[in-house]
Amino acid sequence: MWNIVSYYTVKLELDFKDFFMIYDVIIVGGGPAGLSAAIYASRSKLSALLLEENICGGHVVTTNFLDNYPGFHEGINGFDFAVKLEAQARRFGVKIIYDKVLKIDNECIKKVITINSIYEGRSIIIAVGTHVREMKIPGEAKFKGNGVSFCATCDAPFYKNKNVLVVGGSDSATQESIYLSKFARSVTIVYRGSKLRSTKILYDKVLLHKNIFIMYNTILKKICGSDYVEKVIIMDVNTKKMIDLKIDGVFVFIGLIPNTSFISNIKLDDVGYVLTDENMCTSIAGVLACGDIRKKRLRQVVTAVSDGAQAAVSAQYYIENL
Amino acid sequence: MWNIVSYYTVKLELDFKDFFMIYDVIIVGGGPAGLSAAIYASRSKLSALLLEENICGGHVVTTNFLDNYPGFHEGINGFDFAVKLEAQARRFGVKIIYDKVLKIDNECIKKVITINSIYEGRSIIIAVGTHVREMKIPGEAKFKGNGVSFCATCDAPFYKNKNVLVVGGSDSATQESIYLSKFARSVTIVYRGSKLRSTKILYDKVLLHKNIFIMYNTILKKICGSDYVEKVIIMDVNTKKMIDLKIDGVFVFIGLIPNTSFISNIKLDDVGYVLTDENMCTSIAGVLACGDIRKKRLRQVVTAVSDGAQAAVSAQYYIENL
Repeated sequence: MWNIVSYYTVKLELDFKDFFMIYDVIIVGGGPAGLSAAIYASRSKLSALLLEENICGGHVVTTNFLDNYPGFHEGINGFDFAVKLEAQARRFGVKIIYDKVLKIDNECIKKVITINSIYEGRSIIIAVGTHVREMKIPGEAKFKGNGVSFCATCDAPFYKNKNVLVVGGSDSATQESIYLSKFARSVTIVYRGSKLRSTKILYDKVLLHKNIFIMYNTILKKICGSDYVEKVIIMDVNTKKMIDLKIDGVFVFIGLIPNTSFISNIKLDDVGYVLTDENMCTSIAGVLACGDIRKKRLRQVVTAVSDGAQAAVSAQYYIENL
Repeated sequence: MWNIVSYYTVKLELDFKDFFMIYDVIIVGGGPAGLSAAIYASRSKLSALLLEENICGGHVVTTNFLDNYPGFHEGINGFDFAVKLEAQARRFGVKIIYDKVLKIDNECIKKVITINSIYEGRSIIIAVGTHVREMKIPGEAKFKGNGVSFCATCDAPFYKNKNVLVVGGSDSATQESIYLSKFARSVTIVYRGSKLRSTKILYDKVLLHKNIFIMYNTILKKICGSDYVEKVIIMDVNTKKMIDLKIDGVFVFIGLIPNTSFISNIKLDDVGYVLTDENMCTSIAGVLACGDIRKKRLRQVVTAVSDGAQAAVSAQYYIENL
């Protein structure tokens, strides 16, 4: 439990109004789900605080082109979209504070403990999304940003006419490979299985790209170079033989990890995604979860904003019946 | 079952290609849910046909200002939004045909029987939404469009400085009353209960508007006039006394009815909404439902487009596993 003395010490550093403020809803996370929750909550005249660690927009910020979000008929740049979402939420009066959440206390009046303060709210909406899974192999950490990337749409333009490696066999690995193939001279997919996991449609697309190569039954073991990535060592799963490959960049798409490290007591699935019903209610009353952090089938911007709206309405129902 | 002779007769009137065409997915209804399903299905390279009876956009078309759809930070006119959705769906290659669906045959290859033809598809997405409930009282049908309206955002500007009546006590009745109060001289809410059903926030808002009056425990019995509405007769539920009221317009907001008349075999709830799981699957394999037609808590544009996207992905899963 948090310390009562440090609680007041920290509080006194904030503006006086915050000292007595109990928000109707505290939204943790400023991606599309969190911002949509903020739009809906604020527009319903709930007092809403949104806490974001870095920059509003979530993964969308690094999405070069958002093609399928309904309403932008010619598509929209991800960063521009994020700016619009934030502007809309601010128009309805949400308060946004940049701070890292450490812990949530699920009393009747809930407490969100951050690095800089403690905030109190009648309800909490968790919209913290996911982060990319790392391989934890030699060279990965060393070359991050210097040849090792987790985002094709961010870094593909740096690899024009170069040779890149993609690790993973999922839909997103396949999709990103196709995207990379428009820039790179060659894209080599390293995948441990004997058949890509991605949908047939995406797999068929890959076959149409002459500069995409697939190495089945292989595992990336090491990334080598001096200042930048120069070479990788790949193992054949069946023969255990090591293969050296000259490569200029490594793109890692081996999945996402839910950002649930600070969550306690709430029911999660085996992987760590938050279990909710269709109304975004978690196993704790007054604590809602929405967006990518939820256990669900389709993680898209459009499902995230819908989740956010529903979470805000469920928060309102909860508060009205307190 | 449909008649095999008339089936071929009708078919021959269509263009030749349609004769042999089995679509991957047939979407019934061109509101936000249906158009979003079309966007997602077509973009995934499924062959998609969308059948719409009137005009694409659904209720959105008559929404003056869509304020809370995430991404349009200054709001957007409903009609403009509908045009964008349709353009986006067409960009990805959906085929849109204007035709009224009469019946769906849920064989393995599903058949959609319309007034003009029969279409075949591997999967069906039902996105037909709702229509407004009528009161079925004397004068209602006669004065529809001449003083009786079901859409404040469509008709409020015609009642500047006039006296209007609102029937209903729900959230939408309350919301529309507030909207009307900006135009009309007076807004009188007629409601059979002794307390409005709407959320406290909306009720509090109503109290702030000096030109909104609430008549509790009353029922509208008759609408009178010559060419236009001139007078209404209202009954006091307790005393059974009749009250005459001079009025220029009547706005009816007593609920929505799901457009499920042509649906058979699929499980519905008591009211007629389609029962689905979170992935939009109905009780029949390969038949998905999305948007307002579903049994769910929050019927908004943002939840409709999310439903549509999920229905398209579920259709894709279904087809891939056929």
